[in-house]
Amino acid sequence: MTRKLIECVPNFSEGRRPEVMDAIVGCFRNRKGCYLFDDRADKDHNRLVVSLVGEPGPVQDALIAAAKVAVRRIDMEKHQGGHPRIGAVDVIPFTPVKAVTMAECVDLAHAFGSRFHAETGVPVYFYGEAARNPDRKELEVIRKGQYEVLKTQINRPERHPDVGLPALHPSAGATVIGARPFLVAFNVNLNTGDLKVAQAIARAARASGGGFAHVKGIGLPLADRGMVQVSLNIVDHEKNPLYRVLEFVRMEARRWGVEIVETEVYGMAPAAALLGSTGYYMQMAGFDARQVIELRLLEMMGDNGDS
Amino acid sequence: MTRKLIECVPNFSEGRRPEVMDAIVGCFRNRKGCYLFDDRADKDHNRLVVSLVGEPGPVQDALIAAAKVAVRRIDMEKHQGGHPRIGAVDVIPFTPVKAVTMAECVDLAHAFGSRFHAETGVPVYFYGEAARNPDRKELEVIRKGQYEVLKTQINRPERHPDVGLPALHPSAGATVIGARPFLVAFNVNLNTGDLKVAQAIARAARASGGGFAHVKGIGLPLADRGMVQVSLNIVDHEKNPLYRVLEFVRMEARRWGVEIVETEVYGMAPAAALLGSTGYYMQMAGFDARQVIELRLLEMMGDNGDS
Repeated sequence: MTRKLIECVPNFSEGRRPEVMDAIVGCFRNRKGCYLFDDRADKDHNRLVVSLVGEPGPVQDALIAAAKVAVRRIDMEKHQGGHPRIGAVDVIPFTPVKAVTMAECVDLAHAFGSRFHAETGVPVYFYGEAARNPDRKELEVIRKGQYEVLKTQINRPERHPDVGLPALHPSAGATVIGARPFLVAFNVNLNTGDLKVAQAIARAARASGGGFAHVKGIGLPLADRGMVQVSLNIVDHEKNPLYRVLEFVRMEARRWGVEIVETEVYGMAPAAALLGSTGYYMQMAGFDARQVIELRLLEMMGDNGDS
Repeated sequence: MTRKLIECVPNFSEGRRPEVMDAIVGCFRNRKGCYLFDDRADKDHNRLVVSLVGEPGPVQDALIAAAKVAVRRIDMEKHQGGHPRIGAVDVIPFTPVKAVTMAECVDLAHAFGSRFHAETGVPVYFYGEAARNPDRKELEVIRKGQYEVLKTQINRPERHPDVGLPALHPSAGATVIGARPFLVAFNVNLNTGDLKVAQAIARAARASGGGFAHVKGIGLPLADRGMVQVSLNIVDHEKNPLYRVLEFVRMEARRWGVEIVETEVYGMAPAAALLGSTGYYMQMAGFDARQVIELRLLEMMGDNGDS
C-alpha cells in the first residue's frame, strides 16, 4: 500500500525563549514517520513556525506532545507579539502531500481537533477546508481582535468554538485547526524600480483584484537591488499553476515595457507544482511523475514498507 | 549520512523463455536497498533489460545472484537475436543517481568487475567512463562482430578482456561492465510528415553531425499520426540540458516553417534533468532541489536511517 503523506505547519506563540522553543521543537525530532523539515522563530512576532512532513499517525502524535509543552509553558495573558494570535498553539493546518485527498485531510483535522481538545482542554476552531461554518474559512475571521478580544466575545454564539465549551483556556487561549492545499510562495522580480508597477500587477493577478481565484499577492520594493517584486502566494497550484501565473505577470508587465529579471520559489514546494510547469514549457505529452526516479523510489520505499 | 543511490540497467541475452527471465528478474525482487523499477523483454532481440535503483551494496549482491542464473541457463552457442551481444549477461552499466559521483561509480564498476569474474568465471570488459582503454569507451567497439567473432579474436592483444584470461566463457561468453551518466530519452514531434526535416534536425543536434557533444539522435516517421519525430538520447543532461536541446530543435525547425507539436520523455529521468529545465523557463534564481518536498523527504529518510 502506498504510504500516505501530509504536511503540517503548526504555529506556536513563542519566538523569544529558546528553552521553550527547544522543548517544543524537540517533540518533532527522532520520530519514525514524522520528519522535521524546518523551524523558524521570529522575535518580533514572538512566534515559532514548524514545518513537518510525514504519515498522519506519527505527525498527530508529535503534535499532541508539542501542544502539551506549549500549553504548559506559554501564558497568553502575558504574551505580546506583532503577529495576530489567539492561543499558545495558534494554528495547525494539515495539507495533503501524497496519496491523501483533501477530504481525508478534512476528516483528519476534525478527528485531531477532538483529540487535541480532549488531551489539552483547549477549545478548537476549524478553518480552511475543514471549516464547519462557511464564515470560518479564513483565519482572519476566527482570530478577529486576537486573544484579548476573543476572550470577551467567545460566549457570543457566533464566536463559540467548534469543539469545547465557549470559554478560552485560562492560559493557552484557543487553537485553530484546519486543512488547506499546499501554499507555494512565488516571487517575480522586475527590471524597474517603480513600485506602482509591481503593485498594479499584483492587484491584477490576485483574486481580490479580479485575477486568479487562488492567488494572493502584493507589490514590494527591493530597494537595494533597484528592482520591485510581485510577491505571490499560490494557494492552489493545481488550479492556478505557476507557469500560468508567471506568464500572466509577464503579459501585464509589457504594458510598462518592463521585463522579468528572475523568479523565486520561496520555501518548500511539492514536486507536482514544479513538474506541471515543466510540462507546459516543454510541451510534454503524457508525462507521469512516476517517470522521475526519485519520486518513483519514494513511492516504492513506501510500498515495500521498509521505512 | 546521506544514502548513496545508483541506477543499474543490466541487459541479459534472454527474451523468449519466460521461466529463465522470471528466474533472473526474481533475483531483484524483495531485496532491501535494491528497487526493481522495470523489466522489459524483446522477443526479436531475444534480450531482457532490467532497471534497478538502489544502494551500491544491495544492487551488486542482486546482480551477482542474477548473473549466476543467467550464466547457468543461457547458452550463447545457441543464442540468436536481433540485438548485438557478446554474453549471457551482456552489459551492466552503473549510473550515479544521488550522493554518488561518477568517479565512485567508476571505482564501483572496477571492483564489481573483479567480483563478477571471480564468482562467474566470465571475462569482463570495462566501458564508458570505466574504460581502462580509451578505445573501449563505446560499447560498439567491444561488441564488434558480436559473440561469434569475439570468440575467434579474443586471443588478439587488442581484444583481450580487462579482467580474466583471453578466452570466452564456454557458454556465457563475456560481459561488459561500466559506468555512464544517466541517459534521458527525449523525443520531439513535429507538425510535418516530411521525414527529411526530422532527419536534418537530428543530424544538426547530434554530436556526430557537429551538434551537442552528448546528444545522439535520429529522425523517425510517425506515419499513423502524419508527423515526424526527432528521437534523441541525451547522454549527459547536465552538460546538454533538455531545454537547450528543445530550443535548438525549435530554432532549426523554423527553417521549414515547422513547429513542435509535443515532446516526450521516454522512460525514467532523474529529477535534476527536469528541474534544471524548469529553472530555465521560469527564470528561477537560487533554486535548490531540497526545496522540493519529496526530494527533501527522500534525503531525510536516508539520513534517519529508517529505511
